[in-house]
Amino acid sequence: MIVRDYNDIIKSDRNRVVSDAKWSSVRMLLAEDGMGFSFHITFLEAGSEHTFEYKNHFESVYCMQGSGSITDLATGETHLIRPGVMYALDQHDRHTLRAEEDLVMACVFNPPVTGSEVHREDGSYALETT
Amino acid sequence: MIVRDYNDIIKSDRNRVVSDAKWSSVRMLLAEDGMGFSFHITFLEAGSEHTFEYKNHFESVYCMQGSGSITDLATGETHLIRPGVMYALDQHDRHTLRAEEDLVMACVFNPPVTGSEVHREDGSYALETT
Repeated sequence: MIVRDYNDIIKSDRNRVVSDAKWSSVRMLLAEDGMGFSFHITFLEAGSEHTFEYKNHFESVYCMQGSGSITDLATGETHLIRPGVMYALDQHDRHTLRAEEDLVMACVFNPPVTGSEVHREDGSYALETT
Repeated sequence: MIVRDYNDIIKSDRNRVVSDAKWSSVRMLLAEDGMGFSFHITFLEAGSEHTFEYKNHFESVYCMQGSGSITDLATGETHLIRPGVMYALDQHDRHTLRAEEDLVMACVFNPPVTGSEVHREDGSYALETT
């Protein structure tokens, strides 16, 4: 059994925290944990906008706090984000996420993120092999 | 892209809500969604105790609200549960979860739950094929 506390990680295990422009993510579970998925608590700063396309991953995102919106760039459709809303990128959907207030999201990736990916210019992660 | 709102589901999509003795779970993503994992928001009633052993599944559980504890029945070790604590049953660990206050948890299963499983007497889910 693996037990990890978000509150401890942000104080003393900073190599599990990754940040980029106006977002940061706490890596609660990575590929090396052997669960077959990774699990992340991700923060997006109020007023920020992010375009991602996980060509090699499925991702689900559950909003725990905050408000904003997500636009599916294939269809142009926009959905409001508030606590309780989940979106799942089952088509590796290219999307723009906007934070109206600070957003706190619980994210799951399959295949699991290894921890060494970087967002490429097209908003994707490369598929890494461990 | 799949978008679902927990708040809508509990009002008007009750076939996504499953309940048993002193717990209930909202099935945000199931096997049929094709993500390779399932995602659930689970409630455990204050004062309740639950023993589970997912022999055929990996499960991670992230505490969003409430307090309690989890005991690893193989080692006897007990960990406190509070918001921000995650446990991951990477060894299919048999465990007892106790809710001191009402617990609200974000749960991920791999392989994904199909929705037709029931908890067996030993606290496990059978492995279902879709």
